[in-house]
Amino acid sequence: METVGILSPGDMGHTVGERLRTHGLRVIAHLKDRSARTRGLAAKAGIEEVETFEALAEEADVLLCILVPAAAEEAAQKTAQAIRNTGADVLYADCNAVAPETTKRIGAIISEAGGRFVDASIIGPPPRREGATRFYASGEHAGSLAKLEAYGLDVPVVSERIGDASAVKMCYAGLTKGLTALCTNLLVAAEALGVREALFAEYNLSQGPMLKRMEGGLPGMPPKSRRWVGEMEEIAATMASVGMSPKFHEGAAEIYRLVGSSTLADRTPEDPDEPTLEEMLRVLVKML
Amino acid sequence: METVGILSPGDMGHTVGERLRTHGLRVIAHLKDRSARTRGLAAKAGIEEVETFEALAEEADVLLCILVPAAAEEAAQKTAQAIRNTGADVLYADCNAVAPETTKRIGAIISEAGGRFVDASIIGPPPRREGATRFYASGEHAGSLAKLEAYGLDVPVVSERIGDASAVKMCYAGLTKGLTALCTNLLVAAEALGVREALFAEYNLSQGPMLKRMEGGLPGMPPKSRRWVGEMEEIAATMASVGMSPKFHEGAAEIYRLVGSSTLADRTPEDPDEPTLEEMLRVLVKML
Repeated sequence: METVGILSPGDMGHTVGERLRTHGLRVIAHLKDRSARTRGLAAKAGIEEVETFEALAEEADVLLCILVPAAAEEAAQKTAQAIRNTGADVLYADCNAVAPETTKRIGAIISEAGGRFVDASIIGPPPRREGATRFYASGEHAGSLAKLEAYGLDVPVVSERIGDASAVKMCYAGLTKGLTALCTNLLVAAEALGVREALFAEYNLSQGPMLKRMEGGLPGMPPKSRRWVGEMEEIAATMASVGMSPKFHEGAAEIYRLVGSSTLADRTPEDPDEPTLEEMLRVLVKML
Repeated sequence: METVGILSPGDMGHTVGERLRTHGLRVIAHLKDRSARTRGLAAKAGIEEVETFEALAEEADVLLCILVPAAAEEAAQKTAQAIRNTGADVLYADCNAVAPETTKRIGAIISEAGGRFVDASIIGPPPRREGATRFYASGEHAGSLAKLEAYGLDVPVVSERIGDASAVKMCYAGLTKGLTALCTNLLVAAEALGVREALFAEYNLSQGPMLKRMEGGLPGMPPKSRRWVGEMEEIAATMASVGMSPKFHEGAAEIYRLVGSSTLADRTPEDPDEPTLEEMLRVLVKML
């Protein structure tokens, strides 16, 4: 294993690329049509630019697809076309937060073009420090992706089944991001109802760890809210696929859409001026 | 203050009655049409039975209405009729988990009959030990209810506004019981998808306190699930009343309805044989 292609080096992707590069791999990306911010992140991470999608498919031993859920299928289709055009032998890992059924569709696109497909899902923050982030993998080629463990990534193999790595991610993010959405929903309502102070006093008495989680976690969410809308919709679809209620995560998508339409979402994670929880609630309650 | 009437001495009500009684008050209830279990709990708590609703209204200095949400309005109507029949001077505290709009309707029923109404809401477990449970109160007569602080209850006054005590409860239980429902939804889905073990391993690594909360809290939920359905619907209505998403708590109502239709819900909180989380999930996944 020598070269890894990243589609695309955004917040998560460029950190993964940087980690693999500092562990001895060459990392490449196709950056045409990408934002100035993504190009800047790629340059900072030492990711090399290749000119065409075909070059990406030919030069990479592994392609890691790390995008927003809505872009996952199109990226697979472009890759399938590049595989057909070049005859390249590609190991393609869809690392996106998508439903098992979506992963299976994407896997079929890659396999039918002759690529080897791995269902992968990322749990944890962009992997800057050791041990905080895992790349769950499933499917018959999951063991091949696990070779990246020699280059700084944790790649636990879940099973031989395409869909299982995605299922773990859906149930995990369904809790973490679902809870963030639930808390935001309730706190904005409390602000609108005029009982925020009494509620916080009670949380402080009997839900101390949860209050700390909210105060620590909620103000950093708005810059990510827009891309979480699609993830919540994938989780809702996952719940519905086994007969459980999709409504929690449909509600979570609504909240992230509301937050994403506010000025709070115009910050980037690099901006230093994170609002306090109270400031965030005051902005959101005005949007009702 | 000498006599408190409890409508009705169920799990929460009989414990409240017992606490007031051991702190020197006479506690009475009207037990006609009540279940054998409720009559037994009342007897155990030393609550005296009165023969008619009129006697309850006449003899009680305070009436505490502690019921499932769906029964709250009917109880207020029966009390209003008893006030009209007797001319009794009643302080009536609706302690139920209902939306602020529901509380306002109930308050109007009592006030129009000549009673003094308090919006109250209980946060915490049945008050067996000191300091764990609070009776939030709001409205112009909240201070009168706060006299129960001399008899073993914590009664923080939120405001002069009817609806505020209920709003605190809705946003609080919206988090605690909403989170329990969200976790149940996700864990049953993980079981159905065949990834429960991988998910628990990841929760254990990165969501330890949340996993402990689930293992400790979820197995005790089924006996309460049936009465939580209505509470979730009141929370959904509260969210919608200020323009926030009702979907989380509509989803929570669905989950509690599913759990409530299982044999798990036939236990009572007194039964010693609480299932493990894994046993609970195995029962629920069969209902999909």
